[in-house]
Amino acid sequence: MSEAAVEEQKNPFAMSLEEAMTTQRAIRRLKTDPVDDALVLRLIELAQKAPTGSNAQNWEFVVVRDRAVKERLGRLNGLAWRLYGGLGRRIARNDPPMQRILDAVQWQADHFADIPVLVIACLRGPRFAWPRIAATSFYGSIYPSVQNLLLAARAAGLGAALITLPLWSHFLARRALGLPRAVSPCAVIPLGWPKGRYGPTTRRPVGDVVHLDRFGQQPYRGATASEIGS
Amino acid sequence: MSEAAVEEQKNPFAMSLEEAMTTQRAIRRLKTDPVDDALVLRLIELAQKAPTGSNAQNWEFVVVRDRAVKERLGRLNGLAWRLYGGLGRRIARNDPPMQRILDAVQWQADHFADIPVLVIACLRGPRFAWPRIAATSFYGSIYPSVQNLLLAARAAGLGAALITLPLWSHFLARRALGLPRAVSPCAVIPLGWPKGRYGPTTRRPVGDVVHLDRFGQQPYRGATASEIGS
Repeated sequence: MSEAAVEEQKNPFAMSLEEAMTTQRAIRRLKTDPVDDALVLRLIELAQKAPTGSNAQNWEFVVVRDRAVKERLGRLNGLAWRLYGGLGRRIARNDPPMQRILDAVQWQADHFADIPVLVIACLRGPRFAWPRIAATSFYGSIYPSVQNLLLAARAAGLGAALITLPLWSHFLARRALGLPRAVSPCAVIPLGWPKGRYGPTTRRPVGDVVHLDRFGQQPYRGATASEIGS
Repeated sequence: MSEAAVEEQKNPFAMSLEEAMTTQRAIRRLKTDPVDDALVLRLIELAQKAPTGSNAQNWEFVVVRDRAVKERLGRLNGLAWRLYGGLGRRIARNDPPMQRILDAVQWQADHFADIPVLVIACLRGPRFAWPRIAATSFYGSIYPSVQNLLLAARAAGLGAALITLPLWSHFLARRALGLPRAVSPCAVIPLGWPKGRYGPTTRRPVGDVVHLDRFGQQPYRGATASEIGS
């Protein structure tokens, strides 16, 4: 075994940035085996390294293992899912890859209280819907940390996903988690050892989403970064 | 040189996830040296690997090098900064670390049009301020990719930061970038070779931001993840 491989066994976060990013995917089917607190806290420690607006570091993370709390959030999730999922099924009826995603979300909804750990990423402080810059600055202070958490989970081999459905009612979600009014729940990350596997995802060529100087100027349409470099 | 070190020279994204995360910081003082399109597009390619709500992959990235466009965004940034920065100075007058951040933001505002590349991360599709789940789902589809971009920039040794001030007026920012109404600008990432250096950041102990099952249950207060593990 190479030196790097031995190191990676000792420390899963030694995985290369590129491998973690290119093999990250939502994993919703999870085993019920327990996940250590120390590991979950290490993921959150890495999440805390992400930037926050004005360097406020005003995040709070609720780590839920208690079945009663998971059931309450699961009921909220199920309620929203019955509405939203039914709609999704109809829209995606001719889209097999999307059907597979919907199957996994259905599985997650059916087994919500069996998920070993739910991490609820919250942000402290006033949240204004207007002007838009206030909204984007608010969420820009929590989602970078959520993405660090997801990448760290991937490196550790933990299944994870980013969901918001259980939070459709802030009032009820706050009540389930005992959150004060000043703390907003923003995202839920279910964690557990995966039944599925991490692996590559498909994306449009980068040239299709890149515009030079002004929207619509797309000289790289259809190209990947390595094609542009060579 | 070890095999891993040779590999990293060839491919900066072979940097370990842990090193990239623990040494990421906002770098605002940038050299005027050019940055290759291929490298910027590789950062965006890695940004595209992040999750989006309903897997919509509805992002668009505007890469700005044109001085005229940078000047327009710089004027918008300057206008907001004169208001917000003045306020910040007064609030932080007894906080030397915050004063240093404000100095760097001032430098950025003064040299805005000299920044080699601005990446504007945008999201296509309707943006609702209400209910809150719509807002969090919207921004949850762009900020994970922004964080990937920032981490990839750090691995490549490029200075980067996450800012929103130039977008205080969506109307004017849209006009500067030629964005259609269906595309919302969410964040600006100035990129360039750094005058400063990456390095460790300080954060509160993870135990201070973690709550078990319900908000306020903090048995790990003051502890780091490694202290909990041992």
